[in-house]
Order: sequence, then C-alpha cells, then structure tokens
Amino acid sequence: MPRGLKPDLNPSMPANKTTCQSLDESANPLAQLSALLEGDMAAVNDEIIKRMDSPVAMIPQLASYLIAAGGKRIRPLLTLAATQIYGGAMTRAHGLASAVEFIHTATLLHDDVVDESAERRGQPAANLVFGNQASVLVGDFLFSRAFQIMTDDGSLDVLRILSSASAIIAQGEVMQLANAGNLATSMKEYIEIITAKTAALFAAACEVGPIIAEADVSAAQAMAEYGLNMGIAFQIADDALDYDADRTKLGKDIGDDFRESKMTAPVILALAKADETEKIFWSRVIQEKDQRDSDFQTAQNILAKHNAIEESLRLAEQYGEKARLALAEAPDHECRAILNELVTYSIHRTN
Amino acid sequence: MPRGLKPDLNPSMPANKTTCQSLDESANPLAQLSALLEGDMAAVNDEIIKRMDSPVAMIPQLASYLIAAGGKRIRPLLTLAATQIYGGAMTRAHGLASAVEFIHTATLLHDDVVDESAERRGQPAANLVFGNQASVLVGDFLFSRAFQIMTDDGSLDVLRILSSASAIIAQGEVMQLANAGNLATSMKEYIEIITAKTAALFAAACEVGPIIAEADVSAAQAMAEYGLNMGIAFQIADDALDYDADRTKLGKDIGDDFRESKMTAPVILALAKADETEKIFWSRVIQEKDQRDSDFQTAQNILAKHNAIEESLRLAEQYGEKARLALAEAPDHECRAILNELVTYSIHRTN
Repeated sequence: MPRGLKPDLNPSMPANKTTCQSLDESANPLAQLSALLEGDMAAVNDEIIKRMDSPVAMIPQLASYLIAAGGKRIRPLLTLAATQIYGGAMTRAHGLASAVEFIHTATLLHDDVVDESAERRGQPAANLVFGNQASVLVGDFLFSRAFQIMTDDGSLDVLRILSSASAIIAQGEVMQLANAGNLATSMKEYIEIITAKTAALFAAACEVGPIIAEADVSAAQAMAEYGLNMGIAFQIADDALDYDADRTKLGKDIGDDFRESKMTAPVILALAKADETEKIFWSRVIQEKDQRDSDFQTAQNILAKHNAIEESLRLAEQYGEKARLALAEAPDHECRAILNELVTYSIHRTN
Repeated sequence: MPRGLKPDLNPSMPANKTTCQSLDESANPLAQLSALLEGDMAAVNDEIIKRMDSPVAMIPQLASYLIAAGGKRIRPLLTLAATQIYGGAMTRAHGLASAVEFIHTATLLHDDVVDESAERRGQPAANLVFGNQASVLVGDFLFSRAFQIMTDDGSLDVLRILSSASAIIAQGEVMQLANAGNLATSMKEYIEIITAKTAALFAAACEVGPIIAEADVSAAQAMAEYGLNMGIAFQIADDALDYDADRTKLGKDIGDDFRESKMTAPVILALAKADETEKIFWSRVIQEKDQRDSDFQTAQNILAKHNAIEESLRLAEQYGEKARLALAEAPDHECRAILNELVTYSIHRTN
C-alpha cells in the first residue's frame, strides 16, 4: 500500500491480518505508529477490555476509568512495533502488549496512591474517585492478570523479562521515595532511579518483540537497549516538562515533582550552579519540604536563570542518541523509521 | 526414624536431603508440621531471605519487618507437606513455597494499607512504621519476586495456578471492600468473598505439591479441594476469633472487622436472628458506620445471645469435613495425617 494513503480500516477484520499501513506524515511518531498499527492496536484494546473484565463490577469500572482515559499507549505500541520489525506473530503481540499495558496501569494506580496525585491523564486520579483501597487492589488485579496473559502465551523468556522489569520498577519507586527531599541526590542516582522506574518497562516492552519473533539474542539486546535509553530520555523530558510554564497554558497539571520534593534532572542541574540564596531556597523547599504559594514560580525562575530545562533536554538527547544507535542494528522497516523519530519526539514533546 | 524421637537437625545440612522427621505429639499440628519439615522450612527461610534482598535498603528492611515477625507460615508449610505426600522434589518446593509466602506477604502489606490496620503479627502494622507508600511498593516488589521465582522454576502449570490465585485474591478483596457496610450481604456472598481472598491461596499452595511431583490431575484436584475448604474453614474461624472476648486477655487485637464494618459470619448469623432493637444497632454500626466506644462490647453480647460464634464454628466444621474428605484421596503419609489434624486445629485454634 502506498505511503500517505489513509486506509479504510475495517475494525472487525481479523487483527492478525493487519500489516504495516500508510503513514500520516504530518502526525507525530506516536500518532503515525498508531495509524500504521491501527488494526493491531484495536486488537490490543479488545484484549485489554476482555482481560480487565471481572464479575466484581468495581474492577472494570476503575480499570476502564484509567485505561479508557487514554494515555499515550506508548508501551503496547513499542511491543507491536518491535514484533513487526522482526516479523513475529502479531496475535501473540496483542496479548503481550496488553500485559505490558496492564503492568504499566497497575504501577500508575499504585503510584497515584503513593503520590497522592490530583490528576492523571487530565482527570482526577483514580484514588480520589474510588479511594486508595480500591486503587491498590485493582492495581493488584491488573498485575495478576498481566501474569495470567503471559502464562497463557507460554513463553518463559517473556515471563522472565516482565517479572524482572516489574521487580525493578518497584525498586525504582522505593528508591525514589527514599531519595525524596535528599538534596545530595547525584545525577547518577537520579538516572538509576528513572532507569528502574520508567526505562526498564520500555526496555521490556521492546525486547518482547524479537522474543516473539524468535530472533537471535543480539536482536533482543538491541531492542532492549533502544527501549532502555529511549525510556531514560523520555523520563528526563517528562521531568523537565513538569517545570515548563508553557504547559500551564495547555491546561496541564505541572509542579507535581516539586510539591513532592522529588530530586529530578532540572533541580539537580540548577542546584549544581546555585548561589547561597538559591541553596537556602532549595534546602527549604526540597529538604525541609516547607513550601509556600509562590515557591514553584521561584523554582521555575531559578531553573530558567541556569538553563536547567535546556540542559536537561541536552542530557536526554545523549540517551536518545544511544537509543538511535541501538535501533540501527534492527532490520530496515517502516516501524523502525518511526521508532527512530520517536526518540526525538519523546525528548521534545509538549505533553 | 522412630516417631517421638527429636532429631538433632544440623541447620547447615543440605535442605533437599531433609525428609520426614519425628513428631512432637504434644504440639499443635502446625508446630508438628514445622518440626517434621524443619530442614525444609529452614531452606524456605533461606530462600525468602535471599530473594527479598535488594540494593534498595528499605525493601529488605520493610519485608523482613513483616516476614521476620513470624506469622504461622501455614501456606509454605502446605506446599512443603503436599510435595512430600506426593514425593515431589523438595528443592523445587523450597522455591515455590517462598513464592507462595511472598504473594501472601504482598497481600498483607497491601491489606494493611487498605484496612489502616493498627497491628499485624503483634507489632505495629508496616504501613504505620514505614508509610503507606513504601508498603504498597514493597508489596509490589515481593509480588514481582514471586513471579521471578516461579519463572526460574519453569513450570507453566504453577505459574497458571498462582497467577490465577493472585487475581482471585484481588477480586475477593475488592468484593469485600464493596460489601463493607452492606447489611444485605448473604452468607453465600460472604463465603464467596473469603473463598477468593483467603481460600484460593490455600488451595494453590496445596495444589503446587502434586504439580511438582508430576502426579496426575486428580491428585492436584484433591489437594486443591483440601486447601480450598480448609482455607474457608480457617477464615470463618478467623472471623469468629475477631469477636472472641477471651483473646483480649491473650493480648490479641480484636474487633478489627467490626470497626471496618465488615460483614462476617458471626454478624450475618446474628443479624438473621436479630430483634428490632438489634436490627437498629447493626444498621447504625455496620451500615451507617456510626460507632461509639461501647458498641463492640454490645456486638459481642448480641453474638453471645444468639450463639453466633458457635454457629460460625459449626459452619466452619462443614467446610472442614469437605477438606478431610478431599484429603482422604491423597496417599497415606505422615504429613497427610498432620494435614488432617490441621483442619480441626484451624477451626478451634485461639490465635
């Protein structure tokens, strides 16, 4: 099918017959990937809806509250794309992509309890609507379901990759918790934390593709390397966006990390250049967690003065470059081209 | 080795060489099982300590806070005993018994967050010491570790049994949450809830034994049936104990279910016999959750008047009988004899 032609996809057509369709060149890479893999994503969504069902009504209610709200679906898209690139069975990818999304959703539900977040995906966080208790338990349910899906798939390699990623995510979250308010957090420790809490699942989502395709070990390594570095870049950019004043205009909820006294890239970079007054400021708002109304604005001003956002994005770009290099080892494919563009997009996106 | 002879167990001896040792006839069945499987339980404890380790210090700290506090270790003992009965490889049982205990510990950690419990295993609940956030995350870590252990073991049957049990536990907990304060909860619904939240893991812990031993399907079914019914009996007894005045003298924390407005067997039975005044009382304390200082004492008095504790235990005995019948299908074995005694003990224990 020629590129640039919008396919008239029949959503009821068997999803495993879907192959690469045309691109909408004007869209961002995630939208491109979604369009290209539209039939497969429809199959993933069907799988998600089927698997989050339960006779206990509150479970699909709460799960769909979060899942239906959208989000970028970046992780299942990574699994689908990586499977396509290596010519794996897409029916298997549908199930495993939904398992990856369930693990992600479970961590979001538990993260919201942890962070007492006010908003998630542009709506009040699930725990504020359904309560902390239900959020913890439905997270556990989705997590268990993810392992049921993997068990049904039957690959011990996939089970090993995703159970390991899950343990690493939890470790990363605990590390982040233990480091909140710790001004001495180094950039190395910060990278360690985001590698665990974010990049490990990106890596696993990508690695599953060549595993499904039964490609050789180096293929799995290359895709894991791509996912890992893209994930680090993605998270650094995310942490920079949390201080980005322009996003307030877009109706985005920003300043969460600041309010939770998280040590993220922009703060670590600004702290390294801080004068005495600024050091006292960071010590009060991060270490002592003593924050007043105007403090977030002050923090944004200090970051701007030291170009901390731009420097954060430059750091993200270094990991992005590693991601691109790893991806270059994958076979030439339309999906590979988009994954390559996705690196840049992850760093320079505005949402 | 003759029964009644206390073996001089060398804790450093290879755990897989441990077979059935002698019984201390005076002890309760759990103590008997622990003595009989002492070497195996030592191996399980080693596995637990090894597997809960993490470079993130807070994880082993929090996990060992709960795990080291003891508890009955009934679930890993069930896995060990069931494996012994069918002659399975004990080295595999050590790993999988620790996976079962990790799943249980994870649910306890999440349950404490959920229930805002004050005490667990005779010490302040972990969430009160380490915070809700850490409890949720360390629970997730242990849960992930459980699946890593199972993946290392490599049996998809075990993975299927335990991932399914995990999903069912979460469903049971959500069901319980949704039913709290609902006076219309029937005994059938209550049994459904405790089957999911408690008995499913007992069943899975038992079923793993014959699976390890590669026994036939009927063996796995019989052990699952034993575990399921013993688990139901165990939980009914647990719920009866929560209203047992004698336990206060033993320093036990009772009245948790009452304070959380949970509909458990004693309340359901007492409600069925309630006069108008009592109905108004239950409606206020359970449905409206409007509780005063003397209400728990009043509840205990009402339960005593209607013999609701005794009736609960009679109900537990019905499930206990089903458990004994299922167990009778297992081959004759010292461990089987103790598992049979364990049914009675589970119902009539005082802690």
